[in-house]
Amino acid sequence: MAAHFDDDGTDGTDGDDGTDGIDGRTLTEGEIFAAHEGGKLSTGLPFALDDQRALATAYTPGVAQVSRAIAGDETLAQRYTWAHRLVAVVSDGSAVLGLGNIGPRAALPVMEGKSALFKAFAGLDSIPLVLDTGDVDEIVETLVRLRPTFGAVNLEDISAPRCFELEQRVVEALDCPVMHDDQHGTAIVVLAALRGACLATARDLAPLRVVITGAGAAGVACANILLAAGVKDVIVVDSHGILHTGRAHLNPIKEELAAHTNPEGRTGELSDACNGADVLIGVSSALVPEDVVATMSPDGIVFALSNPDPEIAPEVAARHAAVVATGRSDFPNQINNVLAFPGVFRGALDANARYISEGMKLAAAEAIASVAAEKLSTDHVVPGAMDPRVAPAVAEAVAEAARRDGLR
Amino acid sequence: MAAHFDDDGTDGTDGDDGTDGIDGRTLTEGEIFAAHEGGKLSTGLPFALDDQRALATAYTPGVAQVSRAIAGDETLAQRYTWAHRLVAVVSDGSAVLGLGNIGPRAALPVMEGKSALFKAFAGLDSIPLVLDTGDVDEIVETLVRLRPTFGAVNLEDISAPRCFELEQRVVEALDCPVMHDDQHGTAIVVLAALRGACLATARDLAPLRVVITGAGAAGVACANILLAAGVKDVIVVDSHGILHTGRAHLNPIKEELAAHTNPEGRTGELSDACNGADVLIGVSSALVPEDVVATMSPDGIVFALSNPDPEIAPEVAARHAAVVATGRSDFPNQINNVLAFPGVFRGALDANARYISEGMKLAAAEAIASVAAEKLSTDHVVPGAMDPRVAPAVAEAVAEAARRDGLR
Repeated sequence: MAAHFDDDGTDGTDGDDGTDGIDGRTLTEGEIFAAHEGGKLSTGLPFALDDQRALATAYTPGVAQVSRAIAGDETLAQRYTWAHRLVAVVSDGSAVLGLGNIGPRAALPVMEGKSALFKAFAGLDSIPLVLDTGDVDEIVETLVRLRPTFGAVNLEDISAPRCFELEQRVVEALDCPVMHDDQHGTAIVVLAALRGACLATARDLAPLRVVITGAGAAGVACANILLAAGVKDVIVVDSHGILHTGRAHLNPIKEELAAHTNPEGRTGELSDACNGADVLIGVSSALVPEDVVATMSPDGIVFALSNPDPEIAPEVAARHAAVVATGRSDFPNQINNVLAFPGVFRGALDANARYISEGMKLAAAEAIASVAAEKLSTDHVVPGAMDPRVAPAVAEAVAEAARRDGLR
Repeated sequence: MAAHFDDDGTDGTDGDDGTDGIDGRTLTEGEIFAAHEGGKLSTGLPFALDDQRALATAYTPGVAQVSRAIAGDETLAQRYTWAHRLVAVVSDGSAVLGLGNIGPRAALPVMEGKSALFKAFAGLDSIPLVLDTGDVDEIVETLVRLRPTFGAVNLEDISAPRCFELEQRVVEALDCPVMHDDQHGTAIVVLAALRGACLATARDLAPLRVVITGAGAAGVACANILLAAGVKDVIVVDSHGILHTGRAHLNPIKEELAAHTNPEGRTGELSDACNGADVLIGVSSALVPEDVVATMSPDGIVFALSNPDPEIAPEVAARHAAVVATGRSDFPNQINNVLAFPGVFRGALDANARYISEGMKLAAAEAIASVAAEKLSTDHVVPGAMDPRVAPAVAEAVAEAARRDGLR
């Protein structure tokens, strides 16, 4: 979800107070804890196991025939086990919401929630796997050993910059869809919202001058997907200022980012980057002053995605920008990962894709934008988080892209 | 279940044909495969996730409060996650039913079935974890890393003698209940059935002379639980004959077994062991000739547990023995692990036990025997596999034993 932003491994201090108003009523602590009592997942049986015959069919002796068939032809495991359509939600608890490195046990409620969303939004079974190690080698190794257990991996709440290496290595090691949602789920929805904002303000995407504040998981992925979508001028700003090729002490991720962004070679602070910019995407939790937004080009677009406290209050940003979006459900234009990840994984699994390609991510963003386009306005550049049309549309578009690219 | 017997790592050749009659009707291949289509498990949500408020409560921003609470006090994970009551069914697929080392993918249908039984019989959530490694070090290491994910571990279908070392090491490494069901589930039900058989034939357990054929997972565990229950004279026979301290080339497991069994120091073959014996427990799939059973003491007890083909046909054994049991559902006295494992894990988790003690296993056997005792006869020395009274009785007895032994 849109709360998962961190800048550069320095976890935000934006402790999530859970009290923003939903449907006009504040969530109470009692209400929240009651909903989490006993956990938020359960396993169930898609058949009745209530007599000797059912037992003999589902378990011994009947199951031996199924096991023997799979032993003879491993592809039958896709048909006769749940694994092929099971998404493992994997975390080490190193960058949980705005709470930072709180460890796997404290991360588990978030991962259970994520698994629940996979079921509710995409009909996919999903289990959380929380790991008592933050070592990249060990996480990769563990998932390789567990490979026959699941059909896809959603990496979640893993701190930057480890998350970049980890995702790449897991993608290479496993022959199934793998995605770090804090990167790509966010990026897909940001691109969809930007397409919506362009349509609502009658502009093209490619010539926009875009500033991204934050070079953590979300910032890097947003920059990359915008470049892949054809945006020419993307500038990334971290806590030390604008990323450019002349800056010293960049880690390899930022070095690569500097090489592919900032074609004008700008330097300086956030205010230097924003001066005349068309779009500001905040994924850092660092505050953005009003006078900085005031220097953007007319009809600007501001996505202030830090949760629960946006980088700039949306009503303040709206004084200067034509489109304002946040990560919150109590303002218009909520940028919420739930618009992307259920359909992305569903589509990838439906198409039996071996991995999730850039083309599949772009297709997902277009599908989200298409749903929003049916009722477009500057206050509705993305569909609502609960819109039931979104996940099926995303799944279909992603599956089609996978088939087109021959990713089976 | 009673099909999981192997002798000494030499997997039985008793391919399980799945065609034994259940309720008078043969299971058809079509019926079996249809029941396994898409797998036998699903994840579900114990709450509705159908509006913005539910989303904000179960996921962000609400979940952050729960995660923060657990970060401050890890014991709260027991209350606010599903992990504490989640049983991981763990296998490397090295000794699956009578099919041998067919690997983790082919083993998965069995593990899914096992997880389904945990839910159906004990109300416990359960997930299969199938591992693409048979290395004991790697399996232990993987489970240690995954520790925050689950509340208990059911090891399943892991070949002997690796299973002994593996179980011991996992028990030592994890602070939660761990049990290799092929060993102890079988042993618990065998002890329960033997108690029932003693009661039905008005005999005491302790003075019985017991012969066990098979020194694999089930054989070793049966010997150990019978000794713990007070039986003085237990003899184990493997494919090379009677285990005794003078035998050469014993592996460490068999050496230990030889040291604790066979107090008279008998040597020779199965026929030598059975001559005058009160009880024969077959857990090896090696055939037992009728003339061997004929030499047992009058009113003998024969448990021929190999599946689907018992070591001796029950109707043949019945010519000589007072009580005959098998692993099959189409004969009286079915020795089925499902009588034990759901209640054992449920009781251990209810009591928050750190491990599963010998006392808890003995209590489980007594609880099963108590349920059978309500309608005891030589054809009903154990309850039926579907008897709904068994799992709650076992759970209560196991939890009480855990509390008594201070295993919290």
